[in-house]
Amino acid sequence: MNDTRDPDASRAEPEIPEASESVGGMSPAFIAQFVGAVGDGDKPLLWRTVKDLHPADTADLLEHLPPEAFRKAIHLLGKDLPAEAVAELSDTARLDALNELTDAAVTAMIGHLDSDDASFLLNDLEEDRRARILNKVSATDRAAIESALAFDEETAGRLMQRAFVAAPVFWSVGQAIDHMRTVPEDDLPEIFFEIFLVDPAFRLQGTVPVSGLVRHPRETPLQAIMKEAPVQVRPEMDQEEVAYLFRQYNLASAPVVDDAGRLTGMITIDDVVDVIQEEAEEDILALSGVSEAGVNQSVFSAVRARIPWLAINLATAFLASAIVSLFAPVIDQVVVLAFLMPVVAGLSGNAGSQALAVAVRAIAERDLQGSMVLRAIRREALTALVNGLIIAWAAALVVLIWFHSPTLSLVIGSAMTLTFCWAGLVGILAPLTLRRLGADPAVASSVFVLTSIDMASFFVFLGLATIFLM
Amino acid sequence: MNDTRDPDASRAEPEIPEASESVGGMSPAFIAQFVGAVGDGDKPLLWRTVKDLHPADTADLLEHLPPEAFRKAIHLLGKDLPAEAVAELSDTARLDALNELTDAAVTAMIGHLDSDDASFLLNDLEEDRRARILNKVSATDRAAIESALAFDEETAGRLMQRAFVAAPVFWSVGQAIDHMRTVPEDDLPEIFFEIFLVDPAFRLQGTVPVSGLVRHPRETPLQAIMKEAPVQVRPEMDQEEVAYLFRQYNLASAPVVDDAGRLTGMITIDDVVDVIQEEAEEDILALSGVSEAGVNQSVFSAVRARIPWLAINLATAFLASAIVSLFAPVIDQVVVLAFLMPVVAGLSGNAGSQALAVAVRAIAERDLQGSMVLRAIRREALTALVNGLIIAWAAALVVLIWFHSPTLSLVIGSAMTLTFCWAGLVGILAPLTLRRLGADPAVASSVFVLTSIDMASFFVFLGLATIFLM
Repeated sequence: MNDTRDPDASRAEPEIPEASESVGGMSPAFIAQFVGAVGDGDKPLLWRTVKDLHPADTADLLEHLPPEAFRKAIHLLGKDLPAEAVAELSDTARLDALNELTDAAVTAMIGHLDSDDASFLLNDLEEDRRARILNKVSATDRAAIESALAFDEETAGRLMQRAFVAAPVFWSVGQAIDHMRTVPEDDLPEIFFEIFLVDPAFRLQGTVPVSGLVRHPRETPLQAIMKEAPVQVRPEMDQEEVAYLFRQYNLASAPVVDDAGRLTGMITIDDVVDVIQEEAEEDILALSGVSEAGVNQSVFSAVRARIPWLAINLATAFLASAIVSLFAPVIDQVVVLAFLMPVVAGLSGNAGSQALAVAVRAIAERDLQGSMVLRAIRREALTALVNGLIIAWAAALVVLIWFHSPTLSLVIGSAMTLTFCWAGLVGILAPLTLRRLGADPAVASSVFVLTSIDMASFFVFLGLATIFLM
Repeated sequence: MNDTRDPDASRAEPEIPEASESVGGMSPAFIAQFVGAVGDGDKPLLWRTVKDLHPADTADLLEHLPPEAFRKAIHLLGKDLPAEAVAELSDTARLDALNELTDAAVTAMIGHLDSDDASFLLNDLEEDRRARILNKVSATDRAAIESALAFDEETAGRLMQRAFVAAPVFWSVGQAIDHMRTVPEDDLPEIFFEIFLVDPAFRLQGTVPVSGLVRHPRETPLQAIMKEAPVQVRPEMDQEEVAYLFRQYNLASAPVVDDAGRLTGMITIDDVVDVIQEEAEEDILALSGVSEAGVNQSVFSAVRARIPWLAINLATAFLASAIVSLFAPVIDQVVVLAFLMPVVAGLSGNAGSQALAVAVRAIAERDLQGSMVLRAIRREALTALVNGLIIAWAAALVVLIWFHSPTLSLVIGSAMTLTFCWAGLVGILAPLTLRRLGADPAVASSVFVLTSIDMASFFVFLGLATIFLM
């Protein structure tokens, strides 16, 4: 297929060209050559390519392969596939990869990962395969993974790792450094940004950034340079709350403590960045009625992720139809009302979407609390009124020029002013109400807001038309 | 106003209760008491309260104040206001605060901040005030700030700080630590996660995490534990690219190098987290036609942020009206078409919004590259077809039951199948085209996609109705 490659594994230079032409892109040529190597079953070449890539880039490369090549690549690489690359795969790809890998390969990977990533991987497996693999890993790893899996998904307990550095509060800088230099390499986290100071009962007393250890003399007591941890995360805390705290306090890592204040784990920023990104994406998709999306989503799963909202909207659209049908006589007599219905409903709908997006964002940002709620409602009402007045009477002017009917112009102007106010209010009140009810404001608001605006628009516009034009 | 407070500054305990009742919330009682203290001009109490808060919480507290109290609080606190709290304020609040503060207070703050935050603050000032203040800070600070301000906004050059730790590549762990213990405290960044190794020309050779320094013996050569930096950021790089790289490679910090490969700065994750959050929010708002939103936005600025999109939509809505008006004869004859127009346009519009949200998210994630583009277009086309067939013929069934007209039912079913396919295609092709043209896919797509779907819906539905029902 491709005569520039050489199956001889002893050649040191990989023949596949540089991975990325630009930031964040795999060059199509690179992917094509990798696919070629997979087709030829050229294990040494695959291995050399993967070895030179960052695990995140390996994950990207694998995700860019056609499904058949993806499975074959995973199979060929087997336990040579870096564990970190598997952890970086998207949800569906990770699942496919784990299904392709042998138990032995997965067991070896688990041993290489921090407990948070290891439990993340194992979480995807069916129960008996998980048990089989857990039986083969070391007792310490097993205990850490099992206790992580005991926490609910999307909580701090799942994000945290069991490996962290703690030191008695009475140690000096030098003692802490000497300790880290003597414990076995594997007992320390792969990377860490702070050490935690604890009392004899392992209760958290304070924290010292690692950079603090190297800028102060060895004899400095840790107590002299420790700071109170700005936050202490509880394992049950929702991951969205954790992300908020990391952003609010510019954290690189944070301690996790149990009911008794004892240190049980550490959360690092890299895991939190993924959460921040996921939550923001969820909001974008939810506002448009999509429950899930992914780079390699199948048509079947895309349909499944989108059809529920369309089905709900089908029902609500016919509700709006029913409202319109109440006004058949006036439409029959004044057909131009049919031309203008989309203008009234469309623009009010947009004003509602704007208010909704602003409210959903503010809720996600924790900006709508206490007295801010009333202030925001007041702002939305006034903004809707001002925008309504401007847009409604601009529309009225167009209608006056187009149809030479002052009455029709007054009808559309008044109708739109009213429906804009309704749109602004429902746009902020719906997500606030849903939050109070404990529902996700982004998911459910959109249907409710847009349907109620459509219905209000048709009712008010055609109602006023019936009164003034018949 | 509030007799529980005591103006006597010598009392050590602040009388204002705990700041936050729950994660991410300021208790209304706490805010009310702070407002009271501002009203009384009780400087010592204000100062004691702020001193005990994290700067990010101080910023939150200030933003929650009514505008008048905000200005008075800033004025009363003056140079006792922590510089970090000012840097944490939202854009408009920061501007207001800087206007309230004296030059002397701002100068003092600049001296306390890393160069990235300092230039961030100064960027907001009018040119002559900025020059006046820059004249009073130290020459080193001034040079760092001026070179930061020379870079475009939203680039790596603005995010980076000038303070970082670099060591010659031939040093040992012990030499590096000793160096950090002897240089003046102010020459080191407040916090850092890695040190950079450079050759005599200050070209970046590699990087060692600070945790690597404390886990290896003093005599270890840095070269033995250094890794190649997974990314080298260029100062001109767009901040969105920087955020992508941090996410992709799980970075806590990254070196910034100039054309010649010389180390010029460092970017840390806390600044990048803000960028990630901002970019995701921008996409959410842009998809709904809002250019800007904020917790304390005025009605005037909310109107300004939303009316351009509404004005564009007013024009496009009348375009759709004009399409409908072409079909006045058929509507006049079959008034039920007016009831069903919103169903066709509304549902196709939703299908288009779904495709658009998925595409905008995938573009932001750098998921739509090379061969993935064709795969995504194929998926969207097929998903639209499947969803279209299901929803269109469900709608046709409802119409058949409601109006007992097989022809009308066939007309709406065929029309919706076609408009769903159009919606799916335009939903993915519009953002891809805008990206190719160098425009922001989130901002401009929404208007274009929804207008074209509205027009197509009315044209196809009423056109088919004219053919088959007249």
